[in-house]
Amino acid sequence: MDYLKKYLDLVERGMAEELTAMSGVASPHLYSIVKQYLEAGGKRLRPCLLLACCEAVGGDVKSALPAAIAVEMYHNWTLIHDDVIDHDDFRRGRATGHRLGASLGTKDLGLEGDVADDYGKNAAILAGDVLQARATEKLFELQGFSDAVVLSVVREMTGRLTVDLLNGEQLDVEMSHLPFEKVDESMISKMMLGKTSALLRYCASAGAALGCGEPLESCGIARDLGEFAALCGLAFQLKDDLLGIFGDERRFGKPIGSDIREGKRTLLACQALARCDGKERERFLQIYGSNDISEAELELARKFLSRGVEATQETMESCVSQALEILEKLEFPSDSARGKLVAFAESMVARDL
Amino acid sequence: MDYLKKYLDLVERGMAEELTAMSGVASPHLYSIVKQYLEAGGKRLRPCLLLACCEAVGGDVKSALPAAIAVEMYHNWTLIHDDVIDHDDFRRGRATGHRLGASLGTKDLGLEGDVADDYGKNAAILAGDVLQARATEKLFELQGFSDAVVLSVVREMTGRLTVDLLNGEQLDVEMSHLPFEKVDESMISKMMLGKTSALLRYCASAGAALGCGEPLESCGIARDLGEFAALCGLAFQLKDDLLGIFGDERRFGKPIGSDIREGKRTLLACQALARCDGKERERFLQIYGSNDISEAELELARKFLSRGVEATQETMESCVSQALEILEKLEFPSDSARGKLVAFAESMVARDL
Repeated sequence: MDYLKKYLDLVERGMAEELTAMSGVASPHLYSIVKQYLEAGGKRLRPCLLLACCEAVGGDVKSALPAAIAVEMYHNWTLIHDDVIDHDDFRRGRATGHRLGASLGTKDLGLEGDVADDYGKNAAILAGDVLQARATEKLFELQGFSDAVVLSVVREMTGRLTVDLLNGEQLDVEMSHLPFEKVDESMISKMMLGKTSALLRYCASAGAALGCGEPLESCGIARDLGEFAALCGLAFQLKDDLLGIFGDERRFGKPIGSDIREGKRTLLACQALARCDGKERERFLQIYGSNDISEAELELARKFLSRGVEATQETMESCVSQALEILEKLEFPSDSARGKLVAFAESMVARDL
Repeated sequence: MDYLKKYLDLVERGMAEELTAMSGVASPHLYSIVKQYLEAGGKRLRPCLLLACCEAVGGDVKSALPAAIAVEMYHNWTLIHDDVIDHDDFRRGRATGHRLGASLGTKDLGLEGDVADDYGKNAAILAGDVLQARATEKLFELQGFSDAVVLSVVREMTGRLTVDLLNGEQLDVEMSHLPFEKVDESMISKMMLGKTSALLRYCASAGAALGCGEPLESCGIARDLGEFAALCGLAFQLKDDLLGIFGDERRFGKPIGSDIREGKRTLLACQALARCDGKERERFLQIYGSNDISEAELELARKFLSRGVEATQETMESCVSQALEILEKLEFPSDSARGKLVAFAESMVARDL
C-alpha cells in the first residue's frame, strides 16, 4: 500500500527507538521475546491507520507517533498471549514467544523437555504483561497535547478497548470448544468485533482525537472514524478467512488447510454449512476440525466451503460500503486525506496477503 | 490491625461496588475468576497502606478510594498469573484461577482432562489481562484531582511499577531453575524489591501524591514514603519466609514444608547455607528442593534453616529501623498520622499470619 509508505517509514523508525529504550528496562529473556515480535513487523496496519486518521482531520502526524507505536505494541502484546493460548509455534516465520522462551531456558539455564516448555510459556506470559503495560505508558510520551486529551486516549485503551478485545478472544476460545452446530453468525460477529475491530476502532478514534486535539469521548469525528475502522476490521477478518482457505499458501504465509484442521469458527464455514443438505452436513462436520484428514478430505472440505464464499463476500462488501458511507458524510480538510481512507477501506478486500 | 479497620471497611465497600460494575462488562468465565480473587480478600494490606499514606499527609481518604481499589485489583491480577506460572491449585483456601477456569469449562462446555486444564489456563491468562487493564482504568475514577495528578499515578502504575514487578517475577522464575549455589543474596534482594516492594512503594507514593494533590514525580513526601514502604515490603517478605518454615500451619494457611520441597530461593536459606560445613551443605542441598522427602528429612532441613534465622531477623529489623528513620525526618500534620505508619512498619514483623 504505497500511500501508507510515508507512515510506515515513521513507524519503523519509532519502533527501532522504542526497542532501544526497552532493552535496558525489561529483563533479558522478556526483552528477547518482545523484540522478536516488534521487529518481525507484519503490515503495521494499525499504526498506519492511526496516523492516516490523524492526518485526515488535519493533525500533525509526527506528534501522534508515540500513539502509533503504542497501538503496534498493544497489538503484539495480544499476539504473544494468543500464541500461548493457541499453542502456535511460529508467527511470521519466526518462533513464537513461548517457543523462543523455551530455547532461551535451554541455552541459559540448561532446561530441557517439559521444564523448558513450561519456562517458555511463563516467560511469554510475563513478556506479554510487560508489553501491555508498556504500550499504555508509551502514550505518555505524547507531547503538545493537553492532559485531558492524553488521559482520554489512555483511558480508552485500558478501558473499552481491552475489555472488548479480551472478551472477543475468550469468545473465540469458547466457540472452539462448542460443537459447530451450536455456533451461530451472531456469535462470530461478536467475536470479530472484539478480536479484530476493537483495536482498529481504537486506532482510528485515537488518531482523529489527537489530530483534532480533542478528548476522544467528546470528538465526533473520532467516533465516526472509529465506526468506519470497525467496519473495515470486519471486512479484513472476512477476507482473512477466505484467504486462509482459498489463498496462495506461499503469499499468505499460513499453511492452507490449517483453518480446516482447526475447525476455525468463521462466517464462511457457517454460511457453507447452511448450504449443505443433511448428509453433506454430517460429512462436512466430520472433516472440519479434525486433525487427521486426507488430501481428498481436505479438498472435499474446500468444496463445501466454496458454497459460503458468495455470502461471505457479500457481507464483506457490505461492510466496506457502510464504511465508505460514513466517510461520505464527513468533512475533511483535503481530498487526498479522504482518498487515503477510501484506499484503506478498499484495501481490506483487494489483497492477496 | 485495628488502626486499619476504618480503611478496611471503606475498601470492602469499594470492592463490592467494583465487582458489581465489572459483572456486566467482562465475559462470564473471566468475571468468575476475577471475582474469586477479589472477594477472597486477604489482608488488603496494599489499599490500606495507600489510604493511610493519603491521610498521613493530610489528604481526604474517601477521594483516594478508587486508587486503593485499583492497587488491590492490580495485586490480584499478578496473583492470577503467578498461580498459572507456579501451577498452584489453591489460594486463600479457594481454587486458583486456572483451576476454577477448568471447572467452568467442564460445567459449561463439557470439557474434560487436559482439554479442561488447558481451557482453565487460557481463561486465567485472559482474566489476569482484563484485571491488569481494569486496575489502570479504575484510577480514572479519581475525582477532584487535576489531570496532571491523575496522569502521574496512571503513568507510574503502567511504567516503573509494572516493569519492576514483572522483572522481579521473572527473576524469581529464573532463580528457581538455577542451582542453589549460584543464587546469591543480591539476586534475592533484587527479586524481593520487584515482587514485593515495588507495589508497596507504589501504594505509599500514590497515596501521598493524592493526599498532597501533587503529581507523584514532583512530590517529595511521596518519594520518601515510597522508600519507607519498599523497606517495609522487604521486612514483610523476610517475615513471610520465616513463617513459611517455622510458622503455625493452621494460622499461616500454607502447608509447612512446601517452601522446603519447592526449594524456595530465600535469604533465610542463603544465610543458613552459609553456616553449613561441606558435608552439611551437601545434605541440605540434597533435601532442599526435593519433592520426595521424609518427615525426618523435613526436620533436618528445618534444623539447617534455623541457622539462618538470626541473620534474617537482623536484616528484617534493620529494614524496619531504616523505614522508621525515614518517618522521623518527615513532617506530618498530626501525631496520630505518624503513629499509624509506625504501627504499619512494626506490624510487618510482629505477626504470626
